[in-house]
Amino acid sequence: MLKLYIGNKNYSSWSMRPWVLLRQAGIAFQEVRVRFDSFQAGSQFKRSIAAVSPTGKVPVLEHGDLRVWDTLAIAEYLAETHADKALWPADPGARAHARSLCAEMHSGFGALRGSCPMNIEARLADTGALIWRDQAGVRANVQRLVDMWSALLQEHGGPMLFGAFSIADAYFAPVCMRLATYALPLPPHIADYVRRVQELPGVQAWIDDALAERDFLDFEEPYRLRPAQG
Amino acid sequence: MLKLYIGNKNYSSWSMRPWVLLRQAGIAFQEVRVRFDSFQAGSQFKRSIAAVSPTGKVPVLEHGDLRVWDTLAIAEYLAETHADKALWPADPGARAHARSLCAEMHSGFGALRGSCPMNIEARLADTGALIWRDQAGVRANVQRLVDMWSALLQEHGGPMLFGAFSIADAYFAPVCMRLATYALPLPPHIADYVRRVQELPGVQAWIDDALAERDFLDFEEPYRLRPAQG
Ligand SMILES: N[C@@H](CCC(=O)N[C@@H](CS)C(=O)NCC(=O)O)C(=O)O
Ligand SMILES: N[C@@H](CCC(=O)N[C@@H](CS)C(=O)NCC(=O)O)C(=O)O
Repeated sequence: MLKLYIGNKNYSSWSMRPWVLLRQAGIAFQEVRVRFDSFQAGSQFKRSIAAVSPTGKVPVLEHGDLRVWDTLAIAEYLAETHADKALWPADPGARAHARSLCAEMHSGFGALRGSCPMNIEARLADTGALIWRDQAGVRANVQRLVDMWSALLQEHGGPMLFGAFSIADAYFAPVCMRLATYALPLPPHIADYVRRVQELPGVQAWIDDALAERDFLDFEEPYRLRPAQG
Repeated sequence: MLKLYIGNKNYSSWSMRPWVLLRQAGIAFQEVRVRFDSFQAGSQFKRSIAAVSPTGKVPVLEHGDLRVWDTLAIAEYLAETHADKALWPADPGARAHARSLCAEMHSGFGALRGSCPMNIEARLADTGALIWRDQAGVRANVQRLVDMWSALLQEHGGPMLFGAFSIADAYFAPVCMRLATYALPLPPHIADYVRRVQELPGVQAWIDDALAERDFLDFEEPYRLRPAQG
């Protein structure tokens, strides 16, 4: 049985990717949540994860004796071991394109990731409006997403980036959550894609778990002193 | 014919990876060098690369109508289209392991990358000694490399990380150049691996071209006012 080590569902954008991929593809796995108490050396999180990951980060996939870490390597491993699930687009050109987008996401979008940390439970539209007004880097990152997604939805006809759901959509799912939390301005057809991603059963299941978590972590909350009144 | 767009060989660490991979694997390709005049919007570099890359960065691989960008996607594309070359390790577990390392490199090692930019022509041992003394993040990055490489060289018996040359070695080749330029302290068996990487014909060819370049770029030179007297 595959085992996936993840962090807090409300906050851990990297954990979300392989979890959504597994769930949405219908691949059975056991989830092991390693709570984020802190990322300092000696924290409970760091001590627990050290036993399974050489980088001290989540996610990690365990398959028997094998441990695969880093989201992109996990995605490739799942694509290879579950060829029937077509986790990458089947066409070689589309597949290369999808890999380019995921690799770009894996190392890029620093402004958006830095200024708009994933926080599924939060509603931060005013914060988002200030970020949008003041941060050209965030606007450029969103513009790149809009351009990329528009071209793909046009080329493949939707509903997902390469037609059917693929690793690329799982890769951008946490980005969709950020766009929603910070209510960043999007053209309607892109807002529709973001909504469709949020409605995928695998994403919906993650969101439900995130909302049920109720674990407010100061070090993941640059913009709030307490959770929203619910 | 494959076409690879790259930047300056002395400075462009990301370009080096697929170039070395292609060369070392004996895959024919045409190189298109897009000189780094500056990374500002409107620079000659940005205008040239915009025609082939949606991210405005090198490297980009062109194969007929297909454009693949971002190093990791290029590596996967080459592995897929040149299965006979065994660019990833053949064993599935070793392959997953190699992908974890490359994905970790792709998004990590920020301290080493930030403080010790690749600069093949330079000899910056004193600068490296100050960095080593003052920057715990760089020391931690190097320690992670030493741990990772030691385990792999032990497990697979060398001479490369997974026995024979693979994408993993190409991925760490620019790191080896940094370790050498800044003369960062390494245990002897790791210094030996760094030397073996530098002696690979594909790496040697890149180094020779880098040294012949003689194109000193201020914005890539945080530590020097002029090239070394030669
Ligand atoms: N490149 C890694 C990034 C993983 C990552 O940064 N995970 C975060 C949680 S979302 C983490 O574990 N952080 C702990 C830390 O930075 O110490 C991947 O794709 O898996
Ligand atoms: N994640 C990208 C990074 C590429 C990258 O940053 N390339 C540098 C040259 S080594 C570049 O083109 N920089 C131009 C810029 O940052 O504007 C990859 O792996 O290809």
